Amino acid sequence: MEKSRLEKQIEFCREIDKEKFIGRQTYLTGGERKENDAEHAWHMAIMTVLLSEYANEEIDVLKTVTMLLIHDLVEIDAGDTYAYDEESKKTQKQRELAAADRIFGLLPEDQQKKFRGLWEEFEAEETPEARFARTMDNIQPTMLNDVTDGKSWAERGVRLSQILGRNKNTGKGSETLWNYSYENFIAPNVEKGRIKKDIERK
Amino acid sequence: MEKSRLEKQIEFCREIDKEKFIGRQTYLTGGERKENDAEHAWHMAIMTVLLSEYANEEIDVLKTVTMLLIHDLVEIDAGDTYAYDEESKKTQKQRELAAADRIFGLLPEDQQKKFRGLWEEFEAEETPEARFARTMDNIQPTMLNDVTDGKSWAERGVRLSQILGRNKNTGKGSETLWNYSYENFIAPNVEKGRIKKDIERK
Repeated sequence: MEKSRLEKQIEFCREIDKEKFIGRQTYLTGGERKENDAEHAWHMAIMTVLLSEYANEEIDVLKTVTMLLIHDLVEIDAGDTYAYDEESKKTQKQRELAAADRIFGLLPEDQQKKFRGLWEEFEAEETPEARFARTMDNIQPTMLNDVTDGKSWAERGVRLSQILGRNKNTGKGSETLWNYSYENFIAPNVEKGRIKKDIERK
Repeated sequence: MEKSRLEKQIEFCREIDKEKFIGRQTYLTGGERKENDAEHAWHMAIMTVLLSEYANEEIDVLKTVTMLLIHDLVEIDAGDTYAYDEESKKTQKQRELAAADRIFGLLPEDQQKKFRGLWEEFEAEETPEARFARTMDNIQPTMLNDVTDGKSWAERGVRLSQILGRNKNTGKGSETLWNYSYENFIAPNVEKGRIKKDIERK
């Protein structure tokens, strides 16, 4: 028997509980434990509500929040790919596409299209909401890395060139927040040697 | 020197990271680890986007999502008060009010009013959004307790009368979701003896 609309929705709600087990490389306040994807998404959703006024272009806040809440669900199957792990980034797209088929596929068709569409939009970074979501996705861990005295950067020997590469689109969502992040979270940690200064910022 | 608007906002964003350390009594999928407040809020925010169609009255989804994302922030100072801990519930209100003063007080005045207003609205349960948020706040842990074979209920010897008392307003946000929750999450666990059947449901 075909599942009812509500049964499909609840099955999806049960399934996404697993995102709470997908670990990231960012240390939380205190530097003892690393963040998981669900915590990360929650944090960025609130930040979006508070900081949307700094978006370069006007954004639909609910759309941006929803995008951020769901953008890492594919990692339930595909795992978290660390921003500076070049090997694992090679297979990331393929793993994530298969995950999107399975996980969003649990939903009724209209909601499946909506959520998958938001995920694809986030990945493509071509709308004001996706650009701002990307800004959040870069600034939130940078803020936490600064709070924890650059522990995650120092442990992995991260270089400034890598951080600037990773953040090449951060200013496209919000110039103000990217400048704030660079000046307050990144530059002081370069100064203190927790980020390796291999280039000058232009 | 007075902090700038953006500095106040960022200070708040840094502070709320601590919610990820506030533990709840609900076990996550697999039954090994309990949920924290940030994970709980993230889960309910997505559920609200998906399930708002079942609200008894029309709701503003962004408002409801924001309310749920922030409704437990006071627990950073006040701690989580377990639904069936009558002793600790006596001082809960006072502890949470002091926490709201401090934590929301970090924000610029307009956002402080907005977030505190949403928290008070959630607590008062008098608007469609607050009623639906309460429905989510009750159904999400009930769903997870069922997924984990009633472990949290059984460990604490929870009785059906307590669960029905706790859920006395769940149907006010969504009759459909409350009925679904009772029939699919609660009743089967009464049947299996994981919830003590001390009364009949009327």
